[in-house]
Amino acid sequence: MKTLITNIELLDTPNGELYCIAIDDKKIVSVAKEAPEGFVADEVLDGKGKLATPGMVNTHGHVSMTLLRSYADDLALMDWLNNHIWPIEGKMVAEDIYWGAMLGIAEMLKGGTTCFADMYAEMDEVAKAAAQLGIRANLCRGMIGFQDNAMDALAENVKLFKDWHGFDEGLIRVSLGPHAPYTCPDGFMEKVIATAKKEGMEVQMHLCETLDEINGSQKDYGMTPIERMDKLGLFDCGVIAAHCVHLTEKDMEIMAAKKVRVAHNPQSNLKLASGIANVPGMQKQGLTVGLGTDGTSSNNNLDMLEEIRLAAMLHKGNTYDPLVIPAEQAWRLGTVEGAKVLGFENVGELKPGQYADIVLWDMHKPHWYPRHNKLSLLVYAANSSDADTVFVNGKKVVEAGKLTGFDEELIYTRINERVAGLLSK
Amino acid sequence: MKTLITNIELLDTPNGELYCIAIDDKKIVSVAKEAPEGFVADEVLDGKGKLATPGMVNTHGHVSMTLLRSYADDLALMDWLNNHIWPIEGKMVAEDIYWGAMLGIAEMLKGGTTCFADMYAEMDEVAKAAAQLGIRANLCRGMIGFQDNAMDALAENVKLFKDWHGFDEGLIRVSLGPHAPYTCPDGFMEKVIATAKKEGMEVQMHLCETLDEINGSQKDYGMTPIERMDKLGLFDCGVIAAHCVHLTEKDMEIMAAKKVRVAHNPQSNLKLASGIANVPGMQKQGLTVGLGTDGTSSNNNLDMLEEIRLAAMLHKGNTYDPLVIPAEQAWRLGTVEGAKVLGFENVGELKPGQYADIVLWDMHKPHWYPRHNKLSLLVYAANSSDADTVFVNGKKVVEAGKLTGFDEELIYTRINERVAGLLSK
Repeated sequence: MKTLITNIELLDTPNGELYCIAIDDKKIVSVAKEAPEGFVADEVLDGKGKLATPGMVNTHGHVSMTLLRSYADDLALMDWLNNHIWPIEGKMVAEDIYWGAMLGIAEMLKGGTTCFADMYAEMDEVAKAAAQLGIRANLCRGMIGFQDNAMDALAENVKLFKDWHGFDEGLIRVSLGPHAPYTCPDGFMEKVIATAKKEGMEVQMHLCETLDEINGSQKDYGMTPIERMDKLGLFDCGVIAAHCVHLTEKDMEIMAAKKVRVAHNPQSNLKLASGIANVPGMQKQGLTVGLGTDGTSSNNNLDMLEEIRLAAMLHKGNTYDPLVIPAEQAWRLGTVEGAKVLGFENVGELKPGQYADIVLWDMHKPHWYPRHNKLSLLVYAANSSDADTVFVNGKKVVEAGKLTGFDEELIYTRINERVAGLLSK
Repeated sequence: MKTLITNIELLDTPNGELYCIAIDDKKIVSVAKEAPEGFVADEVLDGKGKLATPGMVNTHGHVSMTLLRSYADDLALMDWLNNHIWPIEGKMVAEDIYWGAMLGIAEMLKGGTTCFADMYAEMDEVAKAAAQLGIRANLCRGMIGFQDNAMDALAENVKLFKDWHGFDEGLIRVSLGPHAPYTCPDGFMEKVIATAKKEGMEVQMHLCETLDEINGSQKDYGMTPIERMDKLGLFDCGVIAAHCVHLTEKDMEIMAAKKVRVAHNPQSNLKLASGIANVPGMQKQGLTVGLGTDGTSSNNNLDMLEEIRLAAMLHKGNTYDPLVIPAEQAWRLGTVEGAKVLGFENVGELKPGQYADIVLWDMHKPHWYPRHNKLSLLVYAANSSDADTVFVNGKKVVEAGKLTGFDEELIYTRINERVAGLLSK
């Protein structure tokens, strides 16, 4: 399949200048004023009035938690988890996970997010949903190391890797998902690390999300969670560390030396009152940082443009420095840096050789006028609902704001059924 | 004109229960399961799949700065003002102000904001635009007290009051607009206060936006800006204080005693790196607080749902308390409390006797599923683009996401022309 997008504007070209993007199978082959010579497209798409960018990359989440969107908000953390989230999660079965994932993936694609990370149970269902709707993903089985089923979960995670890692020429990756330092004792972490090394797997893990976690680690182990994980050898595997709200300078030095990649979740960290991560500090240390939404219980949407904007805004106000995380950097965190965090190569930029994960934004809205600077408009003024057409891996998955490959009504119907079922259990 | 909205959902009623809203001329006369007996509607509007709420109230801004949206971002404050914003503002003429206001008001209405505050020059143009598009507004002429034209500006502001205050049974209000403590010497403030008392006018003013302002006030006057304004007698007039990022406990006590109302602008304060206002502290003191976007140079949109969400999120993370500003309170800040801040009575709630400023939100989107709690969905997950139909003062001003009373294309065309003209001057 060859696609040619014509009359399209780009982020870094003068306002009103029009370009062509040529896609051959899964990849971008040309971004230029004219189509490449001899390129015969199966489909030509007129991009008039639209702006093309790479798709956004959501580096941390639990997509099937869409089922719990608006179920329990404005509660203290342990009340929220013990009395609300965990009891209903305990009732979920594979079909719940599948439809929760379908809803969340539909939301992400329609809002311009073309790649996501996920940690949950019944991950085979999430992989099926991702493959079905055609979104790029890095998936892991969340494992609570102190639970009885921990070794079964580890076996499931390895099976997920064997079944799905590398699917569709790398559209889906699979990593290991030890939940967090405070839920994974040393003995279990040693097994995870050994498995990672044996299978050649990377690791996703919640790290340093709350002050309680840091204080608990100091009390139980006499060191920070980062020092402990380093001592255990975790960082010799490739690690995606979600949150990192509370890091010491030494933690950051360890992470930089071991090339730990960070998934920063600004909105979730605010909503759960975890705090404000020191992203400018991480960047000074040279850490690779991407952005994530976290699950919809702590956000409550999967809107990556919102996270990009919040990252650009929050750290300016928090550091009293208006030059921190300018628009261009925030956009990179939400795209190409996020792709690096998740271990995807040739993802996150709009240029030849990259996978064709592309969003066409409809600029025919008040907030896109006037157009002094398109990048600034996108990061500081645009709306995720402006995403009009979305490609992943060269395939058009959203057109005129609608999924191309699946009936959205069916998703809403099934979600209502699944939720009614869960609540009546 | 009588309008009946049928089959509509409300924020605080069980999911799926349907209601009727009856509007007679400018006001809501009934919100109930059935239409009032004998009510013969000129128009019946089927609200199926939609949620009705009051419109949002934007308590602080400079709407014509839409002309400068994306013109100068990611700069230090004084560089931004001296070298970018002020020089181009100096070239603006009445027609620029008018079209800038038309664009901004179109953006607000289409995003569910039905009432706004404004401070700028050539305010007659803003009043005309507000009246033309049918939005509720509290307008003032921004006055820089140390400039040569200060007394002319004061005369203009009084003329604006006489021409527009009370327009269309109170749709438009006019207040006095001394810019800020650091631009208004005592002598000028005394004239403003005398005028306010003589004419029965209220006052809008930037107060305590940056640490520099506080430090400058301590240096020049030996007191905080709040203490200084209190000493001058400003707070004996009704005052809308924009920003209030840096307040002492004593400042808050003075403000509470004098019933000063606060326009909190969370996103602008972050973007300009002014800091994070102590809203929970203000609320403990019993201050009336509303939310605002500020101008699009420091935001860069006029999306009040974004401000409501940010207010709900930011203060949780900043105070490490997940119970601070829950969804319901954030929603009130952005609606009924904002209306109080701007001095509008019977605005901001969806009940009989209130002005019919109503938004119908299209819930047929992934982020509105499932519906455990509609208020939580609105505040934490929805998108301003979900505003489908909007009434102000009983008049339908937006339908199916489009302005009913004006050609949006003409606004975009004129904005491009005006901006091209400004840049070539």
